[in-house]
Amino acid sequence: MTQHGHEADTVFARALAGDRRALGRLLSLVERGGPAAERITELAHPHSGRAHIVGITGAPGAGKSTLTGQLMRLLPERSFRPAVLAVDPSSPLTGGAILGDRIRMDDLAGESAFIRSMATRGHSGGLALAVPGALRVFDAVGYDPVIVETVGVGQVEVDVAGAADTTVVVVTPGWGDAVQANKAGLLEVADIFVVNKADRPGAADARRDLELMLDLSHVTGQEDAAGYRPPIVMAQALDGTGADALWEAVAEHRSHLEATGQMADRRRRRLRLEVISRLDQMAQAQAAAVLADDVGRQLLGEVEQRQMAPTTAAARLAERLLTDRRSGRGTG
Amino acid sequence: MTQHGHEADTVFARALAGDRRALGRLLSLVERGGPAAERITELAHPHSGRAHIVGITGAPGAGKSTLTGQLMRLLPERSFRPAVLAVDPSSPLTGGAILGDRIRMDDLAGESAFIRSMATRGHSGGLALAVPGALRVFDAVGYDPVIVETVGVGQVEVDVAGAADTTVVVVTPGWGDAVQANKAGLLEVADIFVVNKADRPGAADARRDLELMLDLSHVTGQEDAAGYRPPIVMAQALDGTGADALWEAVAEHRSHLEATGQMADRRRRRLRLEVISRLDQMAQAQAAAVLADDVGRQLLGEVEQRQMAPTTAAARLAERLLTDRRSGRGTG
Repeated sequence: MTQHGHEADTVFARALAGDRRALGRLLSLVERGGPAAERITELAHPHSGRAHIVGITGAPGAGKSTLTGQLMRLLPERSFRPAVLAVDPSSPLTGGAILGDRIRMDDLAGESAFIRSMATRGHSGGLALAVPGALRVFDAVGYDPVIVETVGVGQVEVDVAGAADTTVVVVTPGWGDAVQANKAGLLEVADIFVVNKADRPGAADARRDLELMLDLSHVTGQEDAAGYRPPIVMAQALDGTGADALWEAVAEHRSHLEATGQMADRRRRRLRLEVISRLDQMAQAQAAAVLADDVGRQLLGEVEQRQMAPTTAAARLAERLLTDRRSGRGTG
Repeated sequence: MTQHGHEADTVFARALAGDRRALGRLLSLVERGGPAAERITELAHPHSGRAHIVGITGAPGAGKSTLTGQLMRLLPERSFRPAVLAVDPSSPLTGGAILGDRIRMDDLAGESAFIRSMATRGHSGGLALAVPGALRVFDAVGYDPVIVETVGVGQVEVDVAGAADTTVVVVTPGWGDAVQANKAGLLEVADIFVVNKADRPGAADARRDLELMLDLSHVTGQEDAAGYRPPIVMAQALDGTGADALWEAVAEHRSHLEATGQMADRRRRRLRLEVISRLDQMAQAQAAAVLADDVGRQLLGEVEQRQMAPTTAAARLAERLLTDRRSGRGTG
């Protein structure tokens, strides 16, 4: 811990001073998890809470990366200092194999921007910890907005979308009707829709389907009450059409979140979920230990021999794992 | 608990004696979770461990339900007493809306078979507990084999497939190449492949792709060492072609599992996972309580105010949630 703490402290100080190589190292340490990642979280947390976190999600091939690239071109011109975290196995920004693309992207973005990809597998603590950790680091060292690009298929990625203040869902004509987006849980998380490749046939239909879906379903919950309806932006990411309009919609959503107090609510909920994830992780580690010792192995043996029900074994193990809250043996 | 225990005991005894209505009620109680479900697990566990659990999985539209229906027609003729648990939102066997179909299926299966669908949402304990609970009930009251039909998309369903002794993966010509199956994690879990709709163009290609994939990847792990290679059965579920060959492959896989000791290994691993799921559920419930009390709310408040890192808050909460194993305060 001391050694990890030492490196983490030094690297964090350098990254805070603007050292891009130190920032890269910091993100690697956060992604790896363990004591160094925890120390970085401690260091970064007091500096964080300013950046606008923008999630960009959608099916593979919808054009998320291209759209993100256009924002990275646009934002520095407007004196923003944007960062991208690409958590998307299909993104050209992700994975060592397309290092060439990453370098090109970095060149395009220039010194005022930073692009980082993160693998979706092989995290000891899981993406549930690695993603908020990386976003916090970007935030702490002064990047704003921080864009997180995720593929909108499967629960993991929808959960990652929950890491954002504003979630942009990208669809394309012919990508599938709004029912598909609904099935994938995308409509529930969308604050803004982009119909990309809007020059293709069916773009107007895609827009109409989304409008209809918004009319029919009050999926946005509390935001309906606050008078917010997700806007639909038509875009052609390849030539940059719609990037301005998208950024305008993002800025408007941010104003809406701040005016209604929802920004604070969303951040509170995220921090709460992060604490719960960390707590779960610790409980799971200790549960594995309780199962692996002599008593645990004996209980499992009795379950296998059908001498004890799994429910009974779990209750016995819980007695050994968890403090008994009712008798006040908790140490807090 | 006493009341739940009383109803569970009565209903279980009736189901064990062959009462089909009692069995339906038993499955509802298991699906609902809570004390009655726990009592049923206690009652059923000593009677279970005999049935062969066969998972049937694949993309929506692959023909899983039709294939399952053919097995349900075939097996009673051969003196088996099969049951089906359909955990598949796209299955015609699933959901109240297609009650007519369920009744027709039940008629077809006759008195010697039982078909039950389970919703994939709204389980307090999650499918991780409801599925093994329902399979155990079928097993305990004498059904064998027990077929569990799941849609092979998403991690949840692949986990459910882990509930089986033998997993059958159904693909169709043009359904997509073997790469798709690999991506969805289906190749890793397959003990038997079915190429359904084998009269369609591309069926031979689908078979060749699967063979190639099996040649290239040693995905079956330990089973390669034991000389087992997943067979590929060509089928036309609509007219019943291939149902015999599929059942033969299932029986052969069962013999292989028993001869190599893998049957016992798989069951041991499943029981272990079930105990862990139950333990996790208890830990999560208690974690929620720890977070919601005065101390928990104060810690979360400090995290929100950036006065405390989420890591520190989680560690403090863990002290209150978990017994300290090192100091031997555990009560087991």
